[in-house]
Amino acid sequence: MTAMFGDFLFGGDYNPEQWPQESWEHDLELLGRAHINEATINVFSWALLEPSEGDYDFSMLDAIVASLDRHGVRIVMATGTAAVPAWMARRYPHVMRKGVDGTQQVFGGRHNFCPSSPKYRERARALASAVARRYAGHPGLVAWHVNNEYGNGGGYCYCETCAAAFRNWLRARYGTVDALNRAWCMNFWSHTIHDFDEVVPPVTYGDGIGTDKCVISGLQIDYRRFQNEQMLDCFRLERDAIRESDASTPITTNLMGTFKDLDYFAWGREMDVVSWDNYPGMDTQPSFTAMCHDLMRGVGGGRPFMLMEQTPNQQNWFPYCKVKRPGEVGKLSWQAVAHGADTVQFFQLKQSVGGCERFHGAVIGHDDSDRSRTYREVAALGADVAARAKRIMGSHVDAKVAVVFDWENYWSLEGCVGPTQGLRYPDEVHRFYRALWKRNVAVDVIESTADLETLRRYDLVVAPTLIMVKPGVADNLERYVEGGGVLVTGYMSGIHDEHDLVVEGGYPGPLRGLCGVWVEEIDAVAPGANVPVRLDVGDGAAVDCAGEIVASIIEPEGARTLATYGGDDFYAGTPAVTAHDVGDGRAIFVGTALDEDGIDALFDDVLHAAGVATIDAPNDVEVASRVGDDGTVYTIVTNTGDETRVWEREDGGRIVLDPFAVLLFEDGVPVAAPAR
Amino acid sequence: MTAMFGDFLFGGDYNPEQWPQESWEHDLELLGRAHINEATINVFSWALLEPSEGDYDFSMLDAIVASLDRHGVRIVMATGTAAVPAWMARRYPHVMRKGVDGTQQVFGGRHNFCPSSPKYRERARALASAVARRYAGHPGLVAWHVNNEYGNGGGYCYCETCAAAFRNWLRARYGTVDALNRAWCMNFWSHTIHDFDEVVPPVTYGDGIGTDKCVISGLQIDYRRFQNEQMLDCFRLERDAIRESDASTPITTNLMGTFKDLDYFAWGREMDVVSWDNYPGMDTQPSFTAMCHDLMRGVGGGRPFMLMEQTPNQQNWFPYCKVKRPGEVGKLSWQAVAHGADTVQFFQLKQSVGGCERFHGAVIGHDDSDRSRTYREVAALGADVAARAKRIMGSHVDAKVAVVFDWENYWSLEGCVGPTQGLRYPDEVHRFYRALWKRNVAVDVIESTADLETLRRYDLVVAPTLIMVKPGVADNLERYVEGGGVLVTGYMSGIHDEHDLVVEGGYPGPLRGLCGVWVEEIDAVAPGANVPVRLDVGDGAAVDCAGEIVASIIEPEGARTLATYGGDDFYAGTPAVTAHDVGDGRAIFVGTALDEDGIDALFDDVLHAAGVATIDAPNDVEVASRVGDDGTVYTIVTNTGDETRVWEREDGGRIVLDPFAVLLFEDGVPVAAPAR
Amino acid sequence: MTAMFGDFLFGGDYNPEQWPQESWEHDLELLGRAHINEATINVFSWALLEPSEGDYDFSMLDAIVASLDRHGVRIVMATGTAAVPAWMARRYPHVMRKGVDGTQQVFGGRHNFCPSSPKYRERARALASAVARRYAGHPGLVAWHVNNEYGNGGGYCYCETCAAAFRNWLRARYGTVDALNRAWCMNFWSHTIHDFDEVVPPVTYGDGIGTDKCVISGLQIDYRRFQNEQMLDCFRLERDAIRESDASTPITTNLMGTFKDLDYFAWGREMDVVSWDNYPGMDTQPSFTAMCHDLMRGVGGGRPFMLMEQTPNQQNWFPYCKVKRPGEVGKLSWQAVAHGADTVQFFQLKQSVGGCERFHGAVIGHDDSDRSRTYREVAALGADVAARAKRIMGSHVDAKVAVVFDWENYWSLEGCVGPTQGLRYPDEVHRFYRALWKRNVAVDVIESTADLETLRRYDLVVAPTLIMVKPGVADNLERYVEGGGVLVTGYMSGIHDEHDLVVEGGYPGPLRGLCGVWVEEIDAVAPGANVPVRLDVGDGAAVDCAGEIVASIIEPEGARTLATYGGDDFYAGTPAVTAHDVGDGRAIFVGTALDEDGIDALFDDVLHAAGVATIDAPNDVEVASRVGDDGTVYTIVTNTGDETRVWEREDGGRIVLDPFAVLLFEDGVPVAAPAR
Repeated sequence: MTAMFGDFLFGGDYNPEQWPQESWEHDLELLGRAHINEATINVFSWALLEPSEGDYDFSMLDAIVASLDRHGVRIVMATGTAAVPAWMARRYPHVMRKGVDGTQQVFGGRHNFCPSSPKYRERARALASAVARRYAGHPGLVAWHVNNEYGNGGGYCYCETCAAAFRNWLRARYGTVDALNRAWCMNFWSHTIHDFDEVVPPVTYGDGIGTDKCVISGLQIDYRRFQNEQMLDCFRLERDAIRESDASTPITTNLMGTFKDLDYFAWGREMDVVSWDNYPGMDTQPSFTAMCHDLMRGVGGGRPFMLMEQTPNQQNWFPYCKVKRPGEVGKLSWQAVAHGADTVQFFQLKQSVGGCERFHGAVIGHDDSDRSRTYREVAALGADVAARAKRIMGSHVDAKVAVVFDWENYWSLEGCVGPTQGLRYPDEVHRFYRALWKRNVAVDVIESTADLETLRRYDLVVAPTLIMVKPGVADNLERYVEGGGVLVTGYMSGIHDEHDLVVEGGYPGPLRGLCGVWVEEIDAVAPGANVPVRLDVGDGAAVDCAGEIVASIIEPEGARTLATYGGDDFYAGTPAVTAHDVGDGRAIFVGTALDEDGIDALFDDVLHAAGVATIDAPNDVEVASRVGDDGTVYTIVTNTGDETRVWEREDGGRIVLDPFAVLLFEDGVPVAAPAR
Repeated sequence: MTAMFGDFLFGGDYNPEQWPQESWEHDLELLGRAHINEATINVFSWALLEPSEGDYDFSMLDAIVASLDRHGVRIVMATGTAAVPAWMARRYPHVMRKGVDGTQQVFGGRHNFCPSSPKYRERARALASAVARRYAGHPGLVAWHVNNEYGNGGGYCYCETCAAAFRNWLRARYGTVDALNRAWCMNFWSHTIHDFDEVVPPVTYGDGIGTDKCVISGLQIDYRRFQNEQMLDCFRLERDAIRESDASTPITTNLMGTFKDLDYFAWGREMDVVSWDNYPGMDTQPSFTAMCHDLMRGVGGGRPFMLMEQTPNQQNWFPYCKVKRPGEVGKLSWQAVAHGADTVQFFQLKQSVGGCERFHGAVIGHDDSDRSRTYREVAALGADVAARAKRIMGSHVDAKVAVVFDWENYWSLEGCVGPTQGLRYPDEVHRFYRALWKRNVAVDVIESTADLETLRRYDLVVAPTLIMVKPGVADNLERYVEGGGVLVTGYMSGIHDEHDLVVEGGYPGPLRGLCGVWVEEIDAVAPGANVPVRLDVGDGAAVDCAGEIVASIIEPEGARTLATYGGDDFYAGTPAVTAHDVGDGRAIFVGTALDEDGIDALFDDVLHAAGVATIDAPNDVEVASRVGDDGTVYTIVTNTGDETRVWEREDGGRIVLDPFAVLLFEDGVPVAAPAR
Repeated sequence: MTAMFGDFLFGGDYNPEQWPQESWEHDLELLGRAHINEATINVFSWALLEPSEGDYDFSMLDAIVASLDRHGVRIVMATGTAAVPAWMARRYPHVMRKGVDGTQQVFGGRHNFCPSSPKYRERARALASAVARRYAGHPGLVAWHVNNEYGNGGGYCYCETCAAAFRNWLRARYGTVDALNRAWCMNFWSHTIHDFDEVVPPVTYGDGIGTDKCVISGLQIDYRRFQNEQMLDCFRLERDAIRESDASTPITTNLMGTFKDLDYFAWGREMDVVSWDNYPGMDTQPSFTAMCHDLMRGVGGGRPFMLMEQTPNQQNWFPYCKVKRPGEVGKLSWQAVAHGADTVQFFQLKQSVGGCERFHGAVIGHDDSDRSRTYREVAALGADVAARAKRIMGSHVDAKVAVVFDWENYWSLEGCVGPTQGLRYPDEVHRFYRALWKRNVAVDVIESTADLETLRRYDLVVAPTLIMVKPGVADNLERYVEGGGVLVTGYMSGIHDEHDLVVEGGYPGPLRGLCGVWVEEIDAVAPGANVPVRLDVGDGAAVDCAGEIVASIIEPEGARTLATYGGDDFYAGTPAVTAHDVGDGRAIFVGTALDEDGIDALFDDVLHAAGVATIDAPNDVEVASRVGDDGTVYTIVTNTGDETRVWEREDGGRIVLDPFAVLLFEDGVPVAAPAR
């Protein structure tokens, strides 16, 4: 694997068109001193570039490019198609999205175009093409950035154009209405259709129940698939337009971690490099952020990714926005690198004076100077990145454990009406991921449909709440386990097929033989309540913990019991967690959402069984490694917390980690950060 | 009273059209072994039966009927009109409801047709007629089931068709705009109209304040009356269509307990037998369920009713759905029987694999077998019902106490803007009902407009929050009390006339003389707060309890004080509860929503005064009786809770009641359940 | 200053048209005995007065006027234009408002006309003109009352008529689209427009984020300015129509304290006398009510105002409506007088029997008698007012402290997206105001744009959260301080210019030199959390208190530190409050929302520094004075709480104040209330 960019990009979004041109030199001088070597430009300039239909005016953008050039700043060039100009919304109202409640959007906001609109597609492609023609081959250009955060804030479109396209999509997918009626179980509530034209998108004034649930969940999942494809088409359209002018510069669009509405694995397959925007909130756990990085790396097929956006100080759009503590931005940046980032980029380089993001942190703040703590921290980080992170570029993460994250499963799980509304898919995946992270186990995140060859790379595969088991998946998992793999799955798994229909015969359906259990019932556990669980940890010892959200009532069919329910409910004494040895491997079924103590104790056993090495480090301390093509191991030790931690290592070493401290080792040898 | 059905129906909803026909035999074999003897079919099949306008296809339904017939399963045949087919909504958009916020529904969901739509009415009547013609006289047919859960989930319709019909309804009701202006107090906020065409339904973008409140409450109450009649017309239309083909088979539609939008007493008068769907939630008290049964029996004029739906295990549509504990379904079924049910039916016999109800419990679950606890409990219950419940069929409940529940009062009370938003009518009725239930006092639920003869059947009449006193009601109550009856009423009573106008002259208006009090002011008690109340219980003893939600400030006008307010508010020391002896009877006025201790202590006295016999049984244990035409007394003793209870009876007997245990006595002699 | 009215008006809203005419005599007899000498009539009678377009029928109003006349009751005559008649909404649908979500209102409610509608304006002007022509010169007429509570409940209008008028308003304001693009920072998110017709009002399906926030905050603030002017135009239109018939009778419209949507200072300049409606809720602090009175007096340029509405007992439209405690209405009335009211008026004189306000208290309640506590308290208050309050009429409040309250600042502060959603402008102003109130310091409330001459009247100016610093304001404040004034400002101040654009160069922007601080960052403090603050109170003593909501991280630039942050956050030890001596004055910068202890301690120092005299009275006891033209000082001492307070005065005097007691002193001599 070679590094994608000649240098480690350290930069971010820059919108100089919001200021008088005479101020730019000052900006660039300040940015240069902060080691900024890249600017992402033209993200929101459509109205400037195309003041009326088909008339382009590149004067402002030319001037920006020239300024950056003069300062040796590399360019990530956006196509600028993420916010529709006012004239277009006025002239062609249907380029704007129609909401799930039937509200037709008018001009305003961003990311709210109709992805099926022929006029939008025509003008977006034309703009991408014009920008590409003009700037392809520019020496400073390092990447193309298509559109921006597809789907963020706008939701899907439910207009008539989309409805018509959806019906055609269904015709192509199902062929006959009978097939559709079967796939969607349309005899339920007399929903049987006799013509594809009778299909209505899942609007709230039809079958939709909010945007998460629907009377006919197959309709909703297919509408999600369709909208995902429509938006992906928009991406492809721009990408292909760029490729007509530029055969090789990497093309990306910025993703958003566990964002629900788009199946990012499908997107990853269309992108040269994955980039994403990392915005942890006040209560986001470091392990969750780590999971998002691994997910984004997985979406990119394991290749290094771009950390396209993060804030150099506080966000503005949370209800309550804390400033970042000293060192925190450095910590977040290095955590990204540790998990596979080959860039560190900010939103944004200079803080807007107007618009609803004006209180979002920036490298150059409203003080417009180099005096601020934010500026000084970014500058120090820039020096560090230039010195240390650059060495790591192009290296990869070597993981023996895979965690499954699957967008259709996401939609399927959260689309259930019952038995509980307490399940959030990313949180349930994180519940398991965190136990791995705490032991500093490297993780790849994979789709549920990963092929057998992929699965066999791992000693352990964890597939939480795998409710939708798509064709071939159960077989692959079974052969994986038979071949010696260890699989962890559990509650809410094995219920739906790819159409979101229940697989009859008893949960966990296609996974029942593999797991050796029949889940007879699934009880909901009320918020704040829990079910006591006793986990057998060998030698007669046990860990007392608790199950939350749901409790599967399990009848073993070959599996042995690892944990039992306690308490006074009627299923006290029955299995809460089971293990089933199959071939050379083992399938673990976790019947309830174990609390942190429980899942930690369980994974002690699981990791031992799978033969996965762990690293004991103090609380909050993350130890993660990347491996270069030459075999060099880069180990990043990060104190993700704001308390000093002392690591007494087994080799007798003792490492003191200040709050948010980051240490880098190359094959075990410390690499010092530059003096500040 | 003779039993309506030849046998005790034990069955429920069955939608075999959702599965391949070859699976039906397996279903029916399983169901047969569970003692299922009835299936409710065709509830949601309009789109299958009438694939295009006027073309009927009964092939599927014929096959279902034939299968049931072969297995000796009786049939409750639905007319199938509860969910509009997609083709109809597409062709005639106005068959669908328009919401209170002006949103026109499109195809999707169920129970959301416009009840005034001529096209809907035409097609619904035609379908009911066609179904009746085809299956009338079928030997397995035991009842007709019109539509389904009218009004559930859809709310009222506010479309132009309804608006026009409403204006005509008003013309007929009021004759002149002057009369309407007076009845609605339309000089308020310049609402005076000069033409009936100026009336606008209480939409949220007009006079409506949500769906509960309105600038002109008379408008809202009349709109509720009108919509109730429109939906009842839809029922009558189908009923009459059936009667053209079938002169005698009972016709019902399934009601929903304290559902607000329909005046079920009016419906009960149109139905041959009342049926209803009982879905207690995680926090529903057994006494509330008991009250609902008594209400439904009251709606049916005291005759036995059908328990048309309940779930054999967990629901799916609550936020958090607990599985039913072992024995709990049996307990719920027997509680229904104890209060007058002559059937025990489930939603549903087989669990859907698609659609938003797929996680709703069923006799045959997703495991599709007889192995599940649910199946086994239902089968055991079926044997029990066949053996024991059958004996009780056709018997009646003999009550000396009546509780008033009145839908117009419901609308009136919850339509008030002030003095508090803390009042929910069913909860306030239950506050009083529970005190009776805890003493195992049989209760009939009656309308406020019950005639004097009806009132005189009872030793005690309880009319909580009787805010709307309709013409004749005060007179009847006064004559009832004069004749020796005991009346309990109180806070928020006697304020409105039938137009929701305040009766001037001082609360409780027309009840003021009877109650012997003037309620000068009504203070709101904040949520979580309360007013101390001391209740005199005779011999100088007192019970300290508390008042919630509202506190009436009472000036006695002939009444004596039973309880006084404590605390440090300015009305400390004034009466909280009063009694007024009138003629041979007594009127009790309860000025504040007493907590459970307070209402219990008060009713010790009230029941004693009224000469009503009570039965002391342990907490949670319900003792209820039905009386056969031959005078046999069937007593059902139910432990409604999940803890074992021991009842040391006055006669020295000792009964141990396991969780959810049910005992049956015939004239005091135990009738054993069949061995399981 | 001379009294506006010949007598102290004691009356309120009266809507006799809701009752039969034969009942009026009874009303007026009761009201007379309660010392009611004024009635506000015709507020909601448009539909009666103009039953069809252009046809007027004054018969009812003539009769009402005649009745009042006969009883010597003075008249405040409303124009009756606040609620559109049904016929008008039906014939001209666009006289009704269109909501921020695009919903077109239909007939219903009140205050929901489109202020730009030519038809509404035409008919409203015509009605005002007709009413004025008919009743001008009537001997009982004391004031004109235009419309009612403009904007209450309806929100702004967002219809096409308004949008078109707004675009013209923008053309006039900005001249060119370039100027507009700059003023609104329209290059943000590609919002650049090329034609004024591309501007869309801040609807929720465009750039609006609810009604408080917007993608382009300049758009929102300008839309607020525009809507304020449209509604003010409606007022002027009616006012001018009245003046055509009546050259001198005072004209008012009733305002609503800190109501957000209208810039009341602009309104005050157009009104002969300010009137307002005071409705404190269950949790409203007496100091907040005091602030509202001072604000309303300030809006009226310091002249006495009318207390147009208050309730004689409980409200109805709060979620939970407490009855007023004995004496509480008297207390509220006298508090108004103490702060400048020259009338005491109620909503309403007689309680409606229908309509959504029927549970709102009234002088004559639903009992329709003189027996009620409410009636008796009002009558006693009427006697007191006639005896004591009358003496005070026309006097003024003499304040040496000004608090800034500015509506554009209100919109600007609450329009921020970040750093916290925890700021409510009136609450932040009150945070400071309360410290003054507790020391019985008289306060004038002024606009931020008050000129230097005005500022110089005060020893102390307090300008909380002055986020928008309009042209000239910083200069005036600087010159004010240089000249010896003391200024208190702080967190969130000095950020925006008049277009809501951030002033670059470091917060507090134009106030930075004056305050001698640079606010480098603004941290959000989560709800329920706080930052410890230690306030130096001299002589080495300190007060430990806390900061809430936001914490400014301050770098002093000449200022000295008065308080520092504690705790364990990285800015512990840095300044939380600073003082900067400039010229002969001082500028205090309060970096965080200090809790009550902190702000109280700070103001001890501030008031001392400013040389402002304070009065120490017990908790809850308010001491306020008005000064007559002859120099007589009227001091009103009010126990605003419901506990008895004893005031041991420095002069050795001892005053016992019962709950809600009110004492009046003329030049220190007690004036006794009439015996009850």
